[in-house]
Amino acid sequence: MQSTMQHSALTILALFEHGQRIYPDSEVVTFDGATIRRTSFAEVARRVRQLAAALVRLGVKPGERVGTFCWNCQEHLEAYFAVPCLGAVLHTLNIRLFPEQIAYVINHAEDSVLIVDATLLHILEPLLPRLSTVRRLLIIGDAAPSLPIGWTRYEEALVRENSDMTFGAIDECSASAMCYTSGTTGNPKGVVYSHRSVWLHSQAIVSASCFGLTDRDRALVSPSMFHANAWGIPHAGWFVGADLILPSRYLQAEPLSRLIALERPTFAGAVPTIWSDLVRFAETHPVDLSSFRLVISGGSAVPRSLIEKLQHRHGVRLVQIWGLTETGPLAALAHPPAGTPVEDDIDWRTKTGRVLQGVELRLADGETILPWDGKAVGEIEVRGPWVTGAYYKDPTPDKFHDGWLRTGDIGTVDPLGYIQITDRSKDVIKSGGEWVSSVEIENHLMAHPDVIEAAVIAVPDARWDERPLACVVFKAGTATDFAALRAFLAERVVRWWLPERWAVIDEVPKTSVGKFDKKVLRERYANGELAVES
Amino acid sequence: MQSTMQHSALTILALFEHGQRIYPDSEVVTFDGATIRRTSFAEVARRVRQLAAALVRLGVKPGERVGTFCWNCQEHLEAYFAVPCLGAVLHTLNIRLFPEQIAYVINHAEDSVLIVDATLLHILEPLLPRLSTVRRLLIIGDAAPSLPIGWTRYEEALVRENSDMTFGAIDECSASAMCYTSGTTGNPKGVVYSHRSVWLHSQAIVSASCFGLTDRDRALVSPSMFHANAWGIPHAGWFVGADLILPSRYLQAEPLSRLIALERPTFAGAVPTIWSDLVRFAETHPVDLSSFRLVISGGSAVPRSLIEKLQHRHGVRLVQIWGLTETGPLAALAHPPAGTPVEDDIDWRTKTGRVLQGVELRLADGETILPWDGKAVGEIEVRGPWVTGAYYKDPTPDKFHDGWLRTGDIGTVDPLGYIQITDRSKDVIKSGGEWVSSVEIENHLMAHPDVIEAAVIAVPDARWDERPLACVVFKAGTATDFAALRAFLAERVVRWWLPERWAVIDEVPKTSVGKFDKKVLRERYANGELAVES
Repeated sequence: MQSTMQHSALTILALFEHGQRIYPDSEVVTFDGATIRRTSFAEVARRVRQLAAALVRLGVKPGERVGTFCWNCQEHLEAYFAVPCLGAVLHTLNIRLFPEQIAYVINHAEDSVLIVDATLLHILEPLLPRLSTVRRLLIIGDAAPSLPIGWTRYEEALVRENSDMTFGAIDECSASAMCYTSGTTGNPKGVVYSHRSVWLHSQAIVSASCFGLTDRDRALVSPSMFHANAWGIPHAGWFVGADLILPSRYLQAEPLSRLIALERPTFAGAVPTIWSDLVRFAETHPVDLSSFRLVISGGSAVPRSLIEKLQHRHGVRLVQIWGLTETGPLAALAHPPAGTPVEDDIDWRTKTGRVLQGVELRLADGETILPWDGKAVGEIEVRGPWVTGAYYKDPTPDKFHDGWLRTGDIGTVDPLGYIQITDRSKDVIKSGGEWVSSVEIENHLMAHPDVIEAAVIAVPDARWDERPLACVVFKAGTATDFAALRAFLAERVVRWWLPERWAVIDEVPKTSVGKFDKKVLRERYANGELAVES
Repeated sequence: MQSTMQHSALTILALFEHGQRIYPDSEVVTFDGATIRRTSFAEVARRVRQLAAALVRLGVKPGERVGTFCWNCQEHLEAYFAVPCLGAVLHTLNIRLFPEQIAYVINHAEDSVLIVDATLLHILEPLLPRLSTVRRLLIIGDAAPSLPIGWTRYEEALVRENSDMTFGAIDECSASAMCYTSGTTGNPKGVVYSHRSVWLHSQAIVSASCFGLTDRDRALVSPSMFHANAWGIPHAGWFVGADLILPSRYLQAEPLSRLIALERPTFAGAVPTIWSDLVRFAETHPVDLSSFRLVISGGSAVPRSLIEKLQHRHGVRLVQIWGLTETGPLAALAHPPAGTPVEDDIDWRTKTGRVLQGVELRLADGETILPWDGKAVGEIEVRGPWVTGAYYKDPTPDKFHDGWLRTGDIGTVDPLGYIQITDRSKDVIKSGGEWVSSVEIENHLMAHPDVIEAAVIAVPDARWDERPLACVVFKAGTATDFAALRAFLAERVVRWWLPERWAVIDEVPKTSVGKFDKKVLRERYANGELAVES
C-alpha cells in the first residue's frame, strides 16, 4: 500500500532555498589573515544565482563536473550551492594531493570548468597541458592584468549576470558533489554524493544529539572545504541559519586565535593537530576560546591529553567524531551517554564515537559478525543513506561486504554502540598473534609533556612476527629520554605492548588531509633511514 | 549523473532498530493515574518483536491495516513499531470521534485487526456489528474472564511468541501509518504516512532548531497517540533515546501535575487547554514544573497570557508549534530568531511559528502568491516530504493547489518566515470587506483574569455583511461584565474590531482533538440558542 505523502525531492536546492529565505541576515565571514570580509546569506544567495547563470553561460550542463581549487572562502561556498543547484556536480579538488594525482582526478572526473583561487594558480598552471577535459577557468581574486584565452575573472563573470536565476527540478538520487579520497596507496578514488545524501547528512548533524547547530551558532569551518564537504558544516549551517566563518588558509595557531577572538565562534570542527597547535600556542600567548559551546575533532584519533587541556585550561568541550569521505562524512560521535557522572565525562569523549541515528554499523572479522561487547576486535562496516556503495568508475569489490562499506578501521564496539578504533587495517600491529593498538600507545605518548607527536608502526620481529616501533617528536631542549618514556608508558599499557624499539623524528609525516602517514615511516624504516634505539 | 551512494531505505524499521540497539536503557513509563509502570527500550523492543510475530500468526500481511483504539500507553507504543516494521499499516483510531465516524473510518481503512484498550471497549463493542473488515480484536488490560471468539488478550498473544522475529526489507514510500482528520464537516479524511515521511519528520524534529531531543531528555507525551502520531514525539524520542513518559488518559491538571513531579520530564507537548488547566490548578495547589527545559503547544492558537504565566510563574519556556495531521504534523515552530533581546522573546513566541527546515511554505490568495511582508493576508500552503499530497480514497482536489496542500489556515508571513495565523478559513470574519481576526480577539479576551475561555464567531450583519460575536466563559462568581470586557479589549485592538454582540456560554465546544469547534457555536446562534446581548 502506498502512502498519500508528497514525494518532495531531498535536494541541495531545497536546502539552499530554505537558508536563503528564512535566514537572510545570517552571516558569511571570510578571513584573509588580516581583514574580515563579511556578508549575509541574502547576498551570498544572490551571488549563487549569478554564479549559476555564469556557469550556464559557459555552457555547463546538468551532470557536468565543475571543479574547485580553493581555500575555505565565500566564493567556495557560492560554488557549493551554484553548481549542484543547476544540476551539475561540484568536484572539490584537494590542493594537497601530489601534482600527478591532481591531474589524474581532474581527468578522471572529466571536469569541464575549474574555479581556482589565484593564490593556488602556481600549483595548477603547470598541470594545464595535461588536463584533457577542462575548457574554462574562473579565477578568484587578483590575477595578472590580462588572462589567457578561456580564463575569466570570477567577479567579472558574476557581474554580467542578474540574480533572479531560477533552478529546475532535480532528482534526489542524482550526483551533487564528488570528492576523491586521499588514499596513501594507488590512485585516489572518487565518492559521488547525491543530493539526497547531502540533505540527509545535513539534517542529521543539526540534531541535538550531533552538532546541534541553530541560527544562534557561529560555526568556524576549519576542515578544508575541499575534503569531505568540510565535514558537512557549510551545508548544515546554511540549512539552519548558523553564521559561517571561513578562515581561508589561515589555520595556524596565531592567525586562527586572532580570528576566534574577533568573531567569537560558538562551534568549530578541526583535525586534532589544529587544536593541539592552538593549545600549545596558548601556553605562551593570550588565547580566548570562551566563545565555544562545542568543538569537534576527528580525521585521526584525538589524544586524551588534548581533550583534557581544552577542558581544564580553556573550558572548551571537545567531542570526538568519526567518519570517512565515504560516509558523508559523519558516522559517529562521542557525546557521553545520558546520566554520565561528571568524573567520567572525559572517559567517554576519548572514545571514537557512538553511531549516529541514520547510520548502521557492524563489526566483522571476515565473514563472522562480532558482538558489541567492547572486547571483540574487528573491522567496522557501515551502511546507510549517506554511505557510499561504490567508487566512481573504479571497481573495488574488496571495499564492500554484502552491501556494507568496509571502513578499514579496526576496533571494538561496546554494548551501547560506542566505537573504539584501535588502528587502520593497514597500520595494525599483530604481535605473537595478538593485537597491539598503535593508536592507544601514541595517545599515551602524546600525553607526555615533552612529546609533541608520536607515531607507532609495526616492524618485523623474528620471535613475535611484529613488534611496535615508537617514533617520537620531542619538544626542543627536553631532557626526557626513551627510558623515561618507556617508564611513563609502563604505567598505562600492558607490559607486552611496551615498544622495545624507539626513534626520534622531526615530525610525523602526514597525508594531504593531515592524517598520520605511517606508510612513509614504514618505508623509512625499511630503507634504514630511521635511527632506531632498542 | 548518478551518485555512488547507497540507497538505504528511510524506514520506521531502521529508526526502531537504532533505538533498540543504541539506547537499550532508555525508559518507557506508563502512568495509570496512581502507579507507574516502568520498562526499558530493550524490553519494549523485545515485546515489539513478539507483537509483530503475534500479528503474523493472526494472518496480518504487509499492506494490511491494523487499528489501535488506545490511550497513550506502552502497548500503544509497541504497536507503533510492530505494525509498520512488519510492513503493515498502523491505523490509530481517534476514540473521540462520534460512534458513526469511528465505524466509518474502520470500514473505510478496511482494518483487519484492532488493538483495543479494555477501558475503551464500551465505545467500540456496540459498533462491532457494523464493522465489515475486522476479523480479530487484541484486548489490552483487564477484560471479562472469557472472551468472544476472535478476541485475544494482548498479553496472551505476546507470551506465545519469542522475541527474535526479524523483519524484511521495506520500501520507504510504502504506507506506515494512517490517521483520519477530525474535520468538522463531512466524513473524516485519511492521511497515509509513509515510512519515509515518519523517518524524515523524526530527524527534523530532533534538530536543535526544533525540539532538540536527545537521550538526556525525558519526553512527556501528552498529545494523543491516536492523533497525528502524538506530534511525532514517540518516533523521534525513540530514535535518539529520549525517555518516553506516557500519561494514559490522565491529562487533567491534578494527576498530570503529580506525574510531572514524580517523573520530572524535561520536555512535553500539549494542547493549550492542558497547559491552561495546569497553570490555573497551580494557583491553588503546589505544582513543580521546574524539570522542563522546553514545552511546546499547538493545535489551536496559544494565548500570550498562557506563555507569560508559564514563563513568569513557573520559569517554563513554551514555544508555539504549528501543523496539521496532513503535515506530519510539524511544519513550523516559534523559536525566536537569533539575537532576540530578552524583552522581545515572548513577542516572538506568541507567533504561530517559523517554517521548519525541510518544509516549504507560501501564502496564496486564489491564484495570486502573496509576499512575506507580515501584512498580506492569505491562505497558508505547504509542500514537503512529510506533507500529504492526497487523502486516502477520497478525491478532494479543492484541498490542493499545484501540488501544494491548502492548509485552510489564514494569516500572514513576515520577511523572516514567521507565520501568524489569524483564522481558519471556515472561521474567518469579513466585516465591510476587511478581515477581523477572531483568534486575536479571543487571545486578548482570554488574557483577562476573569475569563476562562472565549470564542469569537462571525454573525450576519445587515450593514457590514459580517460582525464578530464574542462568546465568553467567565470564572465562577466574577463581577466582570461585557462593558468591562469591551473596555479591556478597546485598549488592545482597533476600534472597528470591537464586538457589539456578546454571549455567556458554559464552555467553548471542542472537536475530538480539543480544538475550538466554532461550527457548533454558529449553529447555536442560527438556532437562537445563545443569549446574545448587544
